Amino acid sequence: MVNSNLKGRRLQHWLADRIFDAIGPAPVRIVIGSDVYQRPGVAAQFTVRIQDGKTLFELLRDPEIGFGEAYSAGRLRVDGDFVEFLVRVYETMKEPRWYARAASKWMEFVQDNSPSKARQNIHRHYDLGNDFYKLWLDRQMLYTCAYFPNPEMTLEDAQISKMDHVCRKLQLEPGETVVEAGCGWGAFALHMARNYGVRVKAYNISHEQIAYARERAREERLEDRVEFIEDDYRNISGRFDAFVSVGMLEHVGPAHYREFGDVIHGAVGDSGRGLIHFIGRSYPLRFSRWIRKRIFPGAYAPTLRQAMDVFEPHRYAVLDVENLRLHYARTVEHWLDRYERSSGKVVGMYDDWFQRAWRLYLAGSIAGFRTNTLQLFQITFAGPRCEKIPWSREHLYQKSPCIPAMS
Amino acid sequence: MVNSNLKGRRLQHWLADRIFDAIGPAPVRIVIGSDVYQRPGVAAQFTVRIQDGKTLFELLRDPEIGFGEAYSAGRLRVDGDFVEFLVRVYETMKEPRWYARAASKWMEFVQDNSPSKARQNIHRHYDLGNDFYKLWLDRQMLYTCAYFPNPEMTLEDAQISKMDHVCRKLQLEPGETVVEAGCGWGAFALHMARNYGVRVKAYNISHEQIAYARERAREERLEDRVEFIEDDYRNISGRFDAFVSVGMLEHVGPAHYREFGDVIHGAVGDSGRGLIHFIGRSYPLRFSRWIRKRIFPGAYAPTLRQAMDVFEPHRYAVLDVENLRLHYARTVEHWLDRYERSSGKVVGMYDDWFQRAWRLYLAGSIAGFRTNTLQLFQITFAGPRCEKIPWSREHLYQKSPCIPAMS
Repeated sequence: MVNSNLKGRRLQHWLADRIFDAIGPAPVRIVIGSDVYQRPGVAAQFTVRIQDGKTLFELLRDPEIGFGEAYSAGRLRVDGDFVEFLVRVYETMKEPRWYARAASKWMEFVQDNSPSKARQNIHRHYDLGNDFYKLWLDRQMLYTCAYFPNPEMTLEDAQISKMDHVCRKLQLEPGETVVEAGCGWGAFALHMARNYGVRVKAYNISHEQIAYARERAREERLEDRVEFIEDDYRNISGRFDAFVSVGMLEHVGPAHYREFGDVIHGAVGDSGRGLIHFIGRSYPLRFSRWIRKRIFPGAYAPTLRQAMDVFEPHRYAVLDVENLRLHYARTVEHWLDRYERSSGKVVGMYDDWFQRAWRLYLAGSIAGFRTNTLQLFQITFAGPRCEKIPWSREHLYQKSPCIPAMS
Repeated sequence: MVNSNLKGRRLQHWLADRIFDAIGPAPVRIVIGSDVYQRPGVAAQFTVRIQDGKTLFELLRDPEIGFGEAYSAGRLRVDGDFVEFLVRVYETMKEPRWYARAASKWMEFVQDNSPSKARQNIHRHYDLGNDFYKLWLDRQMLYTCAYFPNPEMTLEDAQISKMDHVCRKLQLEPGETVVEAGCGWGAFALHMARNYGVRVKAYNISHEQIAYARERAREERLEDRVEFIEDDYRNISGRFDAFVSVGMLEHVGPAHYREFGDVIHGAVGDSGRGLIHFIGRSYPLRFSRWIRKRIFPGAYAPTLRQAMDVFEPHRYAVLDVENLRLHYARTVEHWLDRYERSSGKVVGMYDDWFQRAWRLYLAGSIAGFRTNTLQLFQITFAGPRCEKIPWSREHLYQKSPCIPAMS
């Protein structure tokens, strides 16, 4: 018994060392019961408490899934600032090995982005219930990167600033027509119609979001200027002056970027213009399998090179690319803060597992945007015959007409 | 004789029709002697006067070279605004056929961008004599796209604005070190040292330009802060805070972009930042063979996708891409205007052929930037561990400290 215990602890020690190998020189100590493992020469700032040897083993067997699963199940806890811990691990973590890359590729194959699968993927995330999202998003329910002209601005104002920033990049003028692919709960479509006098056709395949957006349009008496359509972006019909898509490309899938470009060309032709806003990468990397399994099935964040598949075939000129990754870190900090303050309600709506899983997703997103792991790109583009090319970008930095008082 | 004349004219008519086929519905009439050819239903705004049937034949046999050669030799003239004529032809011209594409590819192979060939290529263009360039560039001899915060600004001020725009994008601070690849006549390196307090190492393989730049550094007593080095960018040595290259990527060649990225990484590592400014495309297209034969041997303007070869392998994050193509059109309008006013001197320095060839090059560049044919990209990037990521781009739009009076 003593002997087997000793063997068990030796194995545990060996397993802990393998974890240290994987996460590199991050300042982390591992605690299992009363056993403490620490890398010699590394001053630990964070303590990872692991419930038992089995969890430790699962963590090592498949860290990409294992960490998220153990954390969500409460079998792994982290002492210290959780976001900061993830930042340090992201910075020093080794690349996934070949079998992890193969498994990741396989998952991408299984979670394809065909119209029917896309509907399931979107349903799983965006139809969790509007009440859940109301707990931690801004009043207008924008679930994409905000823009903070001043980092201390409130989230509510920063979301309005973001909408203005995009409208200005698009140079919208009263009487013009806009098509929006992936409109969330409708705030941006309504903002464009209300504040810039354009007519908008907005598409989304999330049933809950479209229902909410239509209700808001009715309340604001904007139904005659904003049409919300529960359909796939591939079915966009009609002709418009401008195309816009904020936070949808992540759900299109790289195999469909050319098709997405064809849809844009069908909508605005050679003389139109547009903007796409999406989470991107500075090098090709899939989302972790845990994120795709538990949070965002079928999601993918492209590099700029990959995103060019949308524009090049139709000779669309890229006019402007802005990387707002620090703004997304700030946005998710607001979300996580509100989320933590509502965590009791989240547990009540779902359960502890769900509450922890979404905390990990939000904290991991902040860490990704703070490091070089995740980027946020806004690409403004114009057709080869577009006559509305802005002379410079100076007009983006005038005082916003839509925020009454800067906070 | 009458018969053969008739045959000749029938052939001429047929040849003119083939030219109309190639240039599409551009509003052009062709005149050869007393014969006028016009496309039915097209109201001609421009008259192309062709000296003889032989020129017409050469134009048709290989228009990509033939037009430039005939124009330079004075065997082809255009009545009407020459730039506007080129704009209309660019807009409607058909794609080159397979043999033209093959010839173009072959030329790219022959005019490679190895260190020794690069030196020849650069010598042929940039060592034409500083006195020639002084005739039509601004006082500081900047031979790259200017930045006009206001389109009516003078060229001199717009070049200063451009330098400030780049310095602000780089967030230069006193005491920092910068390496410049392709420094022209040295104006920008001197501007950075003088106005932003940085130390600069600037590389160029044009002997005439380096000699001029060194003289200017001596005159301005900036030799201790700016070192001009007559060498290939591939031989950059040392470690710097920032990398900058304005108008050199066009001479690097797509086969060398990864190597160029390695040079950048060697110079600024993971924590540095930089900017490259270059003529680009919205779709892959080589420069015309005439431009490569007569004006810019070995030059190539990449798409953004191709340019990503510089950044992706080292995981550099693209922070900002600005397309300044309208500013380059405006810049070359200034150059062409000054050039025309000095055309007598150009003929004196060279000859009529040269004077016409360079007029075509300048006018064609304006047309390219006005249409969707040529783009001008400024890409700001940062290494994966760079800590100097600007919060927003608002600081680029403050009043410039370096232009005393806006014109």
